Amino acid sequence: MGRIWMSQMVSTIADLGRQYFDRSAGNTVLEDTRRLCHDLLSGRGEASGTALAREVVTLFREMEAPDRVAFLRMLNDEFSYKPVDVRAAATTYADDPSEANYQSLRRAVEAPRVELLRRMNMAPGGTGAILVMREFLLQLLSERPDLKPLDTDFRHLFSSWFNRGFLQFERIEWRTPAAILEKLIAYEAVHAIEGWDDLRRRLANDRRCFAFFHPALADEPLIFVEVALTKGLADRIQPLLDAPITGADDEDLNTAIFYSISNCQLGLAGISFGNLLIKQVVDAISAELPSIHNFATLSPIPGFCRWLERQLMNTPPDFLSKDEIDLLKQPDWVENEVLRQGLKKNLMRLCANYLTQVSKRGHALDPVARFHLGNGASIERINWAGDISDKGLRQSAGLMVNYRYAPDQIVGNHEAYVSGGKIASSSKVRALL
Amino acid sequence: MGRIWMSQMVSTIADLGRQYFDRSAGNTVLEDTRRLCHDLLSGRGEASGTALAREVVTLFREMEAPDRVAFLRMLNDEFSYKPVDVRAAATTYADDPSEANYQSLRRAVEAPRVELLRRMNMAPGGTGAILVMREFLLQLLSERPDLKPLDTDFRHLFSSWFNRGFLQFERIEWRTPAAILEKLIAYEAVHAIEGWDDLRRRLANDRRCFAFFHPALADEPLIFVEVALTKGLADRIQPLLDAPITGADDEDLNTAIFYSISNCQLGLAGISFGNLLIKQVVDAISAELPSIHNFATLSPIPGFCRWLERQLMNTPPDFLSKDEIDLLKQPDWVENEVLRQGLKKNLMRLCANYLTQVSKRGHALDPVARFHLGNGASIERINWAGDISDKGLRQSAGLMVNYRYAPDQIVGNHEAYVSGGKIASSSKVRALL
Amino acid sequence: MGRIWMSQMVSTIADLGRQYFDRSAGNTVLEDTRRLCHDLLSGRGEASGTALAREVVTLFREMEAPDRVAFLRMLNDEFSYKPVDVRAAATTYADDPSEANYQSLRRAVEAPRVELLRRMNMAPGGTGAILVMREFLLQLLSERPDLKPLDTDFRHLFSSWFNRGFLQFERIEWRTPAAILEKLIAYEAVHAIEGWDDLRRRLANDRRCFAFFHPALADEPLIFVEVALTKGLADRIQPLLDAPITGADDEDLNTAIFYSISNCQLGLAGISFGNLLIKQVVDAISAELPSIHNFATLSPIPGFCRWLERQLMNTPPDFLSKDEIDLLKQPDWVENEVLRQGLKKNLMRLCANYLTQVSKRGHALDPVARFHLGNGASIERINWAGDISDKGLRQSAGLMVNYRYAPDQIVGNHEAYVSGGKIASSSKVRALL
Amino acid sequence: MGRIWMSQMVSTIADLGRQYFDRSAGNTVLEDTRRLCHDLLSGRGEASGTALAREVVTLFREMEAPDRVAFLRMLNDEFSYKPVDVRAAATTYADDPSEANYQSLRRAVEAPRVELLRRMNMAPGGTGAILVMREFLLQLLSERPDLKPLDTDFRHLFSSWFNRGFLQFERIEWRTPAAILEKLIAYEAVHAIEGWDDLRRRLANDRRCFAFFHPALADEPLIFVEVALTKGLADRIQPLLDAPITGADDEDLNTAIFYSISNCQLGLAGISFGNLLIKQVVDAISAELPSIHNFATLSPIPGFCRWLERQLMNTPPDFLSKDEIDLLKQPDWVENEVLRQGLKKNLMRLCANYLTQVSKRGHALDPVARFHLGNGASIERINWAGDISDKGLRQSAGLMVNYRYAPDQIVGNHEAYVSGGKIASSSKVRALL
Repeated sequence: MGRIWMSQMVSTIADLGRQYFDRSAGNTVLEDTRRLCHDLLSGRGEASGTALAREVVTLFREMEAPDRVAFLRMLNDEFSYKPVDVRAAATTYADDPSEANYQSLRRAVEAPRVELLRRMNMAPGGTGAILVMREFLLQLLSERPDLKPLDTDFRHLFSSWFNRGFLQFERIEWRTPAAILEKLIAYEAVHAIEGWDDLRRRLANDRRCFAFFHPALADEPLIFVEVALTKGLADRIQPLLDAPITGADDEDLNTAIFYSISNCQLGLAGISFGNLLIKQVVDAISAELPSIHNFATLSPIPGFCRWLERQLMNTPPDFLSKDEIDLLKQPDWVENEVLRQGLKKNLMRLCANYLTQVSKRGHALDPVARFHLGNGASIERINWAGDISDKGLRQSAGLMVNYRYAPDQIVGNHEAYVSGGKIASSSKVRALL
Repeated sequence: MGRIWMSQMVSTIADLGRQYFDRSAGNTVLEDTRRLCHDLLSGRGEASGTALAREVVTLFREMEAPDRVAFLRMLNDEFSYKPVDVRAAATTYADDPSEANYQSLRRAVEAPRVELLRRMNMAPGGTGAILVMREFLLQLLSERPDLKPLDTDFRHLFSSWFNRGFLQFERIEWRTPAAILEKLIAYEAVHAIEGWDDLRRRLANDRRCFAFFHPALADEPLIFVEVALTKGLADRIQPLLDAPITGADDEDLNTAIFYSISNCQLGLAGISFGNLLIKQVVDAISAELPSIHNFATLSPIPGFCRWLERQLMNTPPDFLSKDEIDLLKQPDWVENEVLRQGLKKNLMRLCANYLTQVSKRGHALDPVARFHLGNGASIERINWAGDISDKGLRQSAGLMVNYRYAPDQIVGNHEAYVSGGKIASSSKVRALL
Repeated sequence: MGRIWMSQMVSTIADLGRQYFDRSAGNTVLEDTRRLCHDLLSGRGEASGTALAREVVTLFREMEAPDRVAFLRMLNDEFSYKPVDVRAAATTYADDPSEANYQSLRRAVEAPRVELLRRMNMAPGGTGAILVMREFLLQLLSERPDLKPLDTDFRHLFSSWFNRGFLQFERIEWRTPAAILEKLIAYEAVHAIEGWDDLRRRLANDRRCFAFFHPALADEPLIFVEVALTKGLADRIQPLLDAPITGADDEDLNTAIFYSISNCQLGLAGISFGNLLIKQVVDAISAELPSIHNFATLSPIPGFCRWLERQLMNTPPDFLSKDEIDLLKQPDWVENEVLRQGLKKNLMRLCANYLTQVSKRGHALDPVARFHLGNGASIERINWAGDISDKGLRQSAGLMVNYRYAPDQIVGNHEAYVSGGKIASSSKVRALL
Repeated sequence: MGRIWMSQMVSTIADLGRQYFDRSAGNTVLEDTRRLCHDLLSGRGEASGTALAREVVTLFREMEAPDRVAFLRMLNDEFSYKPVDVRAAATTYADDPSEANYQSLRRAVEAPRVELLRRMNMAPGGTGAILVMREFLLQLLSERPDLKPLDTDFRHLFSSWFNRGFLQFERIEWRTPAAILEKLIAYEAVHAIEGWDDLRRRLANDRRCFAFFHPALADEPLIFVEVALTKGLADRIQPLLDAPITGADDEDLNTAIFYSISNCQLGLAGISFGNLLIKQVVDAISAELPSIHNFATLSPIPGFCRWLERQLMNTPPDFLSKDEIDLLKQPDWVENEVLRQGLKKNLMRLCANYLTQVSKRGHALDPVARFHLGNGASIERINWAGDISDKGLRQSAGLMVNYRYAPDQIVGNHEAYVSGGKIASSSKVRALL
């Protein structure tokens, strides 16, 4: 989940950012935008309808990276709440907690940029532009932690705007406009889509793809999930991706495998849709194809090898024998087929161990496990040689895992996990321990 | 602007409300809903997706009025911000205005019901149900002013959700689904639509009708405006409504007359769309029909007679002669054609006076004038016998007014009005003074 | 099935027609149209694309009735096949039946007007205009039987153009555009729709309405059928029309009652769609609502009383007793409740007799029976007091009949009826005989 | 215009066909189909709705090539008109040319397969299947000329079904469903589309693509045309295809260049849409972009080099000098840049000569010229090095031509060409002669 192809861009932007902060001020585009922003917040903004908003958005879209940085700084600093005012209102309320004083405090607490962003949003394409603002901001944050207050406001605003009640749940198929389909190729983050032929296969009769859209972001999916209809639990990703097409009317199909889920909008980082999407897909497939009654993922275990290496540094990890440790300390054991086969039994056990452990704070160790267990799924099966791509071998020694979504256990699993850090797993998985 | 047919309902609900508050507690439906609301706010709400939200919404929709009242009280009281917590956070911030303390204060300030409403909104039909909640609340407020904090939160939430950037601007025509068209008949608030034949005439080739929709409220317009394409400024409403159809391709048509604008959702009271809708319609008609270059309203003057009566009570109003006063003091002068004709010149003058005066706070006296002048329109013409319906005679002695929207003067007019209480008017109108 | 409100128009047109044929020629519009028609058939027609076709269609649309009559005569006479040419080609073929001579004969046999109509059809709205031509022609035929050859060509063309493969099967509901819904009110021919409220009830959750459309006739249904979802066979039409709405999710609903089927386009007389529509509706409802497994009509018996009167004139009909004959000879027995009740048993028997008899040529006597039995339905039940409207009493003494469509018996019933004049009926009906 | 990638398939089918006719009969699938066809034509076909048609279509779709050949033979032979009956009807009409005898003759002349195909067409996907039948038939015709009568009926039927009045004119853009876009890649016959990126470029803002669709053939264009918006007449195809994108709002764009037009359905060979499509596109672009006022093609001259070679064989062609002939007799002169440049002036002259000559029957020599001149275009300009691809050099020594569509000259040009074999050309072209 994430857009890998952006990472390259990020460093460039951060570089530009650094450069920029050293430069002296005096940028005309920025001054124009500042004036328009003040106008937009004033009564003038009300009178001119969306015209001012449109101008601000257009100026922002055309800005070079340094100007964008300056623009975000301006939002953060000039259009911030006023600490003096908040303090005054806070003191007044502390002295006299009346409703009127509460309302004053509440008004003082909201930064003017929140209303400014709401007004920018009136422009055609405004929502998309504001997402780009945050996407840009997120690249800067590690360099410029002082911009965090602005990010908090973005996030707060987006969690209101992108409420599930406003999202549109849609099936993606080969009849979908190409302008949307090309986004899937661009945004797929788990198992890259190798061009249009690969895409068409993923949208064939024995596959399903669903996405959330927001009405203000035409042709832009927020998140999408790819599903394969199979006979029994799929255990390997490569055969799944390359499988010849089966008809969806094949009566032996009984399982829906969620094999890829990708967030599309970097600007929406931290606003979570995956949980809701998966459950809606379970409902949609159940309604369309009553013969499908198993719902599970075929998921990577991105943190397994990293965790394993850390174990080797500790002496002696209580669940590793001396011999195992020696074997694992061989260079390139992961990519050495003989060594890996020798370790197979132990690796499966170690992986079960990794997946079913929780941190001190009660979280699963693996990020993907964290997501699915938090949604109420259980660990169903660990698959040897599930993903033998370079990435698969490197991250998880080729192992993959099925998380099961059993509709009647979701709430129970979720609560046990959230409140007590208990991880649900099948007897098969527990037997590995 | 408003839905007259609701007023009757209001008193009944208020009555029920009063009854209810005297009753002892113990209502099962309410207890169920309370428990679900708490679950929805907890982690359980996250796990069960939209299922809990759906249940809450369904229960609310089925509640009788007394339960609804209790439900709203619960939102207001139980799911309020906690004054103790706000006070503590306020004190902490006053002592140390750090960013961390600001964020704590901010969180303390937001009432839990805001998040609760956001989660309810995830249910299918959630947005509509929440609008109904506020609609119901608004009927109660005069009886139960203690519920105002809840209303403030509704309003705040709606101004974010119903941002112009999320509204869909659509033309309404005879090809529009009947399920939407019937809403126009129900919601028309200025000049009642007398059934489907009248509606079809208002949607003919020489008419235009536009509305804002929200994507989460299918088939429910938020506001709509009706426009007649005419040769020159229309001066009377009855002939306009009854006019035979002209083709829109008639080259003599040069004017767009906005003769009715109706808000549809009582629950959105105080969230203003009219200003934006009018400007978008001006743009849409300009693009479609370049020969239309005048944009004006044909508007009622709902406060004129009421104002006139108040003048008569003051002795002596400086702009009324003794004789005029005597005439106006005749009972039923409005409906006495002879008297009214005798007063014609004076009534026109008085009306010009009424429309161009501002209150001490800089507002136009008439509510409709306030709306259009605030949008940047100017007073173009006062029309004798513009509306000779009972209502027209009673409210404004049959007078109507054209407000003009001249695209290049809107911002100037608006600013002069808002900052200095200056009302823009044509020389014709000024000549009446 | 048919449009009653047209009948009035017909005589006027026929009158105009008569008038016209007495007039001397010399009409300019007609001359213009004639020239354009010749151009359209020539190469000029190919070059100018659809422009010529558009002109011809526009001229026809604007023609007064007398010109239309003359225009149709022109198509019939001037653009007919050439008997001389057909005769020559026929003789040549008779002498030498080669493929080449066959093709020549084939070309000679097709009247030029057929190609002319195909080219007119290229105009926007062309198909609709050509339907109007035939609608007009049909009114004239009894007066002007010499125009029959033209009608044969229309019919031949339409049976190709309106092939089932080109029709669109669509559900009509309250969300359908008003521009289509108003056509239902206009075209309903069995149980008049009393305005928009009545229409809305007929489109509620426990009702279904389906229509065939042709892609070249936007917003114009060709035929539509109205269906009520009920518990068991409905026996009376008035309670059915007035019934309060039940949810479609009511699990007790097990029967689909076809209570009205109306052809919409007079110009398509003789091109039958009803048979195909009913079967497609059976499929659509079966797929949507598996709990519905009975499909039947609630139909009028328009010829019953007329037939009965004819029986009384014959002495003595073998299935009427002396007493029965005397009773039935009472004036107004149909509307005399006492007499009718007295005759109830006999009337039911007589009706069963009427419905199950066939003519010498093997046809059912009643026109509605002819339609449904020809489609493969069977006579399920005769209902006393099924339609107590004036029309119902007058035509069928208030009786109505249910024809049943049992999917697995349709082909068998049809073949037995068509080949052997055998009428399928239930034991209940046979018991009446 | 045509689908090159099909040619390979053709020979295989013809081979199979040959094989088949040698085989002895006894094929079960075919026998089944024969029986169903007879049922479909009988009353049984009427009763069972579209079920029989669906079965026939399904069986045909699943047939191997040999069975398809046998199926087409069956349509041609068993479901032919009956010569004996035609002869009898012809003789009767020749003796007595009454209307009744005409109708009998007419009925005898129509082969039963025509009605059979109409009934097959009722099946879902029927129209598409019938197109495939003819596509298959066309491959066989050279081997099996006895099947021509069947083809004549197909053609006759299709010219009625695919009447312009039933076609849908649609713009193709990047928002069009991928399921349609992939057809463009498959069907493009003039300048191959090199994958999805190339396609996207051809659908960018400064390009237009339009197609005709038939409502019964979802997602299947019948014909499409690709247009580039340019500044002035484009003279070379390669730079046009590779050009960077310009905004459609670029005010300097004044010309629409039709650079590719492709028929998509082999089964519709001989049913012409290109003429109508071009004119409709001229209308559509004029309406959308008033600044575009030149409409021309950039076309290949596929017959030029072939014609030139034939000239060399004649001694001595009167418009070639001795030296020119010697040069042109050099092997590979076309691909020898030096030789070709030396011949440039002469080649331009010869090409003008080629394009402006007509055959004895009054047709232009070049097939593409024949199409555009027959539509009323004129020869505007011949372009040196217009297409330097292998194919372009081989067919036309790299020359291309612009045909101009001047709306006010189309009818005149067309008539002069059709009636007198006169070819319209610009003074520039005439100056080359």
